[in-house]
Amino acid sequence: MFKAIALFLALGLSAIGSVTAAATPATDVMNAPVPPGYYVLQKVVYQNDGGGPDDRAYFVRLLHHLSAHIEATNGQVEIRVVSFAAGIKLFQMARTDAPLAKALDELRAKGVRFMICRNTLKGMGLTPVDLYGVRDEDVVPSGVAEIARLQGMGFVYIHP
Amino acid sequence: MFKAIALFLALGLSAIGSVTAAATPATDVMNAPVPPGYYVLQKVVYQNDGGGPDDRAYFVRLLHHLSAHIEATNGQVEIRVVSFAAGIKLFQMARTDAPLAKALDELRAKGVRFMICRNTLKGMGLTPVDLYGVRDEDVVPSGVAEIARLQGMGFVYIHP
Amino acid sequence: MFKAIALFLALGLSAIGSVTAAATPATDVMNAPVPPGYYVLQKVVYQNDGGGPDDRAYFVRLLHHLSAHIEATNGQVEIRVVSFAAGIKLFQMARTDAPLAKALDELRAKGVRFMICRNTLKGMGLTPVDLYGVRDEDVVPSGVAEIARLQGMGFVYIHP
Repeated sequence: MFKAIALFLALGLSAIGSVTAAATPATDVMNAPVPPGYYVLQKVVYQNDGGGPDDRAYFVRLLHHLSAHIEATNGQVEIRVVSFAAGIKLFQMARTDAPLAKALDELRAKGVRFMICRNTLKGMGLTPVDLYGVRDEDVVPSGVAEIARLQGMGFVYIHP
Repeated sequence: MFKAIALFLALGLSAIGSVTAAATPATDVMNAPVPPGYYVLQKVVYQNDGGGPDDRAYFVRLLHHLSAHIEATNGQVEIRVVSFAAGIKLFQMARTDAPLAKALDELRAKGVRFMICRNTLKGMGLTPVDLYGVRDEDVVPSGVAEIARLQGMGFVYIHP
Repeated sequence: MFKAIALFLALGLSAIGSVTAAATPATDVMNAPVPPGYYVLQKVVYQNDGGGPDDRAYFVRLLHHLSAHIEATNGQVEIRVVSFAAGIKLFQMARTDAPLAKALDELRAKGVRFMICRNTLKGMGLTPVDLYGVRDEDVVPSGVAEIARLQGMGFVYIHP
């Protein structure tokens, strides 16, 4: 497209109309509504075991993906996020990190359930009270076994 | 909870009983047995293609996850680990790394099967004899194609 | 095997024949053809959201995996690659990186479809014309929702 513009300018043409026309398809695909029926109800288990070298940057991306997933499907998605290993840090950080806490609050309000691996808690010497917004019923015996269990119940798996 | 304790101390109350009561649910969820029927027999394919920047740390975590998965499900899980790319280093390292070798031995004794990508072996100029405990029947033509094949056979996928 | 060779040498035997025989299984498994019926038609969705610290190295590995997957299954695989977040860089790089462009061309010629996340494009201020070989019909509303959608349609998931 940049080449096309340069060509028009080089030719000294009044290129406004033509360039607009050439750009139309790109504009359309960037703003076209999602076709009706494109999505059917999804059940999705997300894995969160952190992401080096910067766990916080990973968490911000993860929470953004969840929000975008809900928005794209117009809420036609049931999401469970299973956190284990370094993924647990998200809930420790959120106790003092207002943007992370706010994102968690908003996602929980939209129905996302955040499950926590008990094996990891034991290994780190933590209990639910040490984690932002985590209740007893969010704790599962094992993160990896929960991911397999949910897939066996029809959830599809995404590990961003 | 820390705030609650601080409040009790500030009020000069004999807070022992109350704090214990408040902490009880957290203690319970940390030790509650897995409810009967929570898990049904799982078939799981794990992906191991290594994990930078420290592959050994990744392998230790991976082997720990496998062990925890078996323990959480009380052995009601059939696990195949498909190793390719940098994941193959696990089996090279284990030839001289006793803790890795012991963990592999224990998992194999519990029925875990470790499959090896032949494409990777060829690319690295290796054969099964170069890898700890790998037999000819553990070699598959392609790691990624094997992961897809096993999912097609009912295995669910986990990539820690 | 090295021990076996050492033993033969220590005993002063003419070990050539025996060693060759011992090595035969390893040689065979490295060259054995894929058994008929080992693979059935696969439908696979690959996730590409980049891979630090060196995205280009990750892309090279990813494209290699795709090629190996097609070759191993003798083309009995329908592949869609869903790119989002840092994965989009692949298509920016390929505009000036001939080896990446060539690999994309070859995979597209073999039927691989590369889907692009519109949310990511908007976040990065890009449109399809900024990406190597991307057409309007390759753009999907959301990368993560597309991965879930395709799994719901019978595709199995691989995130290398």
